[in-house]
Amino acid sequence: MSDLPVLPPLPDHDLAWMARALELARGAIGLSDPNPRVGCVIVAEDGTVLGQGHTQQAGGPHAEVMALRDAQARGHAVKGATAYVTLEPCSHHGRTPPCCDALVAAGVGRVVAALQDPNPQVAGRGMARLRASGIDARLLDAASEPAQGARALNIGFFSRMVRARPWVRLKTAASLDGKTALPDGTSQWITGEAARADGHRWRARAAALLTGAGTVLDDDPRLDVRGLTIARQPTLVVVDSRLQTPLDARLFAAERPVWFYAAAPEDARADALQARGAHLTRMADAQGKVDLAAMLADLARREINELHVEAGHKLAGSLLRAGLVDELLVYLAPKLIGEGLDMFHRPTRTSPLAALADAPALVFHDVQRIGDDLRILARPAGRDAF
Amino acid sequence: MSDLPVLPPLPDHDLAWMARALELARGAIGLSDPNPRVGCVIVAEDGTVLGQGHTQQAGGPHAEVMALRDAQARGHAVKGATAYVTLEPCSHHGRTPPCCDALVAAGVGRVVAALQDPNPQVAGRGMARLRASGIDARLLDAASEPAQGARALNIGFFSRMVRARPWVRLKTAASLDGKTALPDGTSQWITGEAARADGHRWRARAAALLTGAGTVLDDDPRLDVRGLTIARQPTLVVVDSRLQTPLDARLFAAERPVWFYAAAPEDARADALQARGAHLTRMADAQGKVDLAAMLADLARREINELHVEAGHKLAGSLLRAGLVDELLVYLAPKLIGEGLDMFHRPTRTSPLAALADAPALVFHDVQRIGDDLRILARPAGRDAF
Repeated sequence: MSDLPVLPPLPDHDLAWMARALELARGAIGLSDPNPRVGCVIVAEDGTVLGQGHTQQAGGPHAEVMALRDAQARGHAVKGATAYVTLEPCSHHGRTPPCCDALVAAGVGRVVAALQDPNPQVAGRGMARLRASGIDARLLDAASEPAQGARALNIGFFSRMVRARPWVRLKTAASLDGKTALPDGTSQWITGEAARADGHRWRARAAALLTGAGTVLDDDPRLDVRGLTIARQPTLVVVDSRLQTPLDARLFAAERPVWFYAAAPEDARADALQARGAHLTRMADAQGKVDLAAMLADLARREINELHVEAGHKLAGSLLRAGLVDELLVYLAPKLIGEGLDMFHRPTRTSPLAALADAPALVFHDVQRIGDDLRILARPAGRDAF
Repeated sequence: MSDLPVLPPLPDHDLAWMARALELARGAIGLSDPNPRVGCVIVAEDGTVLGQGHTQQAGGPHAEVMALRDAQARGHAVKGATAYVTLEPCSHHGRTPPCCDALVAAGVGRVVAALQDPNPQVAGRGMARLRASGIDARLLDAASEPAQGARALNIGFFSRMVRARPWVRLKTAASLDGKTALPDGTSQWITGEAARADGHRWRARAAALLTGAGTVLDDDPRLDVRGLTIARQPTLVVVDSRLQTPLDARLFAAERPVWFYAAAPEDARADALQARGAHLTRMADAQGKVDLAAMLADLARREINELHVEAGHKLAGSLLRAGLVDELLVYLAPKLIGEGLDMFHRPTRTSPLAALADAPALVFHDVQRIGDDLRILARPAGRDAF
């Protein structure tokens, strides 16, 4: 279904409108999961905006329907208008009826989509269905800025659809010399307020936060989103091979699903955690630890798109060693700590490396100053090409 | 002499011409040491550039004289014109006659200087002398961009004049996780070609490079400037407490002064090094090591403005611990090394730190991508305010 006819390039104003739709799509962050973040703007031939909107919570209306309703509420007819949508309109009955049908029924004349939907149930069928209904339906060049932006915004959804695992982002905060804590584990605070607030924005956009029992035992963190208005707290996932999390841990304070992954057999602690409202999955590897790759596959089945990891340097090292980290979110503080804990414990498959050329190659994807600190997004080379 | 009258703000085009003079000043990098890097452009009232130039090698003409000569060579009269110069013209007989006199003799009507000269032999006397000769002599606002740029370009000269020590820049290259080498010391190469070439540009602008005997013994580096056209190789300074540098070390291959600082008493090795052309200074501290602070004072007496340090993590740690590093030049490579050598060995006065708040605070002064790597300039907070 993905063999679309080659069409002449789209006019520049299409890119500008799509950029607007992409801005709308950002409104779906923290709301639409597990559905993708999609924005839609419907524009008359004379450039009048007739309606706009973004995807709502799962089961709620998608962006196209929101934009159509918005146009109706404003008393605008959309007949012959162009709908700009950041992802191919759906063609199947999921939690809601297909958006293609709504666009056809409303009589729009033209649909420009930023990206083909990676969902195998859509994957070109939406565009084809629109075309079959006489609508001029077009995809942007995948290399164009709004198309790239729409993909970046939904990298977790794309990852789940294409790779059957979440997009895994590992967050850490370190001094310029790469230390995340004093030798005694003290790590509050290495970075400044602005960086910590930025960290909460990254938490908020994830479907789930992941940590390990070590961090729970050492720091007893809440690991929730604070200081932001959000529609829901992300699910909390705890890797706790031996089920050591205390029943009065502060992580239970926040209203949200809490999922444990354990390697230990059934025991009384498991029952108590479940009584506390936690969901427990057993998934041991040959070493009697949680099988991390299997856990990620399970999280994808549970419709987790973006997974935000804040773990101690040991679990972080395990995820890195297993090649399961898609992105490092590193806050570097302008200070030197000297003696202290390394950023990651044994992040490489062999340790120490036999040669520098064996060091896993990353790409600095984005570098920004956040307050007095530096935020570095680094990805394994080629990792985002799926 | 520094109490200048308060004058109305300068017109915008003065800032633009000064930016041009600053560009010229950059041509003096690697040439004018120990004299400051100064540029001068002489402009007629109608905006015609009459002459321009920058400071030459020590003993050669300064920027103002170069610009006056350039005007003469082009057949331009400079009577009544404005001379823009990035540092207050000198008023004393140093290696050359005073530039003030040359400007007065040429009949320029106006002189705009970006900065007052920190040299106590000048320090306002130049501006006063020009004014006494009937020239409209003005200083830029010290906070203006060209004034800041002129100061940054001459931070080593300012440091030597004001603090009687060089500006000490410590260069390091590390992985994102803060490792500078594998456990066996292998460090070639962590960063890419572009970063290494950039490193040579920083070497070239320094009056001297400094390393330690440990690095000489471990890596036997040449430690010279390669891949750039330069007027002279920087002086090489070796901290070698026990005079362990082999007589056939590769550092002797480059044509340049080599200065050793040692703590050891006279011995045959000292004679042999001196016979090899090296200059040797003894300067021991109470621990029988080279007294680093005294060495820096000595280097300032020897007219070293900018000192570029490429040392092992131990000497680097000693300099940091003693508070003698003015600027960290850190290249971060997009890779993880895991087990390896830390960026610096015990960079803090107490180790480990008792609390995170005791970590020496830096400021990220400049952050740039260089090829695939990241270049971070960090300074101790407030360090550049002298």
